[in-house]
Amino acid sequence: MSQGTVFDKILDGELPCHRVYEDDQVLAFLDIAPLAPGHTLVIPKQRRAFLHELDDEVAAALGRALPRVARAVMAATGVPEYNVLQNNGSSAHQAVFHVHFHIIPRVGEHGLGVGWVPGQLDGEEARRLLGAMHASLASEA
Amino acid sequence: MSQGTVFDKILDGELPCHRVYEDDQVLAFLDIAPLAPGHTLVIPKQRRAFLHELDDEVAAALGRALPRVARAVMAATGVPEYNVLQNNGSSAHQAVFHVHFHIIPRVGEHGLGVGWVPGQLDGEEARRLLGAMHASLASEA
Repeated sequence: MSQGTVFDKILDGELPCHRVYEDDQVLAFLDIAPLAPGHTLVIPKQRRAFLHELDDEVAAALGRALPRVARAVMAATGVPEYNVLQNNGSSAHQAVFHVHFHIIPRVGEHGLGVGWVPGQLDGEEARRLLGAMHASLASEA
Repeated sequence: MSQGTVFDKILDGELPCHRVYEDDQVLAFLDIAPLAPGHTLVIPKQRRAFLHELDDEVAAALGRALPRVARAVMAATGVPEYNVLQNNGSSAHQAVFHVHFHIIPRVGEHGLGVGWVPGQLDGEEARRLLGAMHASLASEA
């Protein structure tokens, strides 16, 4: 028995999935509780809970797969509009602690509900954020 | 004057941005109407409206950049929870028609509102979807 999440069990073949796509680094399968028909999950085979834990090459493989799987979702559903969502942390609506990108067709009432309450970026705050961001990025360049 | 979206003008240097990260294929900058402090956009330099229009190598470069920028956002904000969102189509809440990934910290009330009304995947529907998806993916393998 594999430890960990339901996605580990799928990767280990202990649970079935409706497999959409697979390569060396990536697996995609239909969500069994879809927000709309064609709702698909794209996951790395690397077992990490959060996006920020992924290696460069795994993240690149995931990025490469997303448009390919999106084209397949569009072809199968005939729906050209969709959201791609990836959640990190339970407050951010993450339920399975293995990185996963949702591809969610938007058709009529069905799909992702998006709540959007924008603020305004302050110049002082921008400078402070950028200082810390550039230091972080320089440390791993 | 460049044609196209506000992001084209940023890429052409006709509009300023609060630049977080840049490489050959990718630019990241602070959203000027943030849902939460640190809200950052990650865009390809390739000018495409929708994710499904991206080339493999551009998509891979975007995927590689996402965890790096996410780590920088976390370092700058101290907030470990966040959503990554990429919208395609006006019904799917896309406002600027140049591919962009949002990285949105989730802190208290601030961040992305997620509306989630799941259905249930039917075996018959799964078979139909997978048939069309596999045909689509095989056509571009």
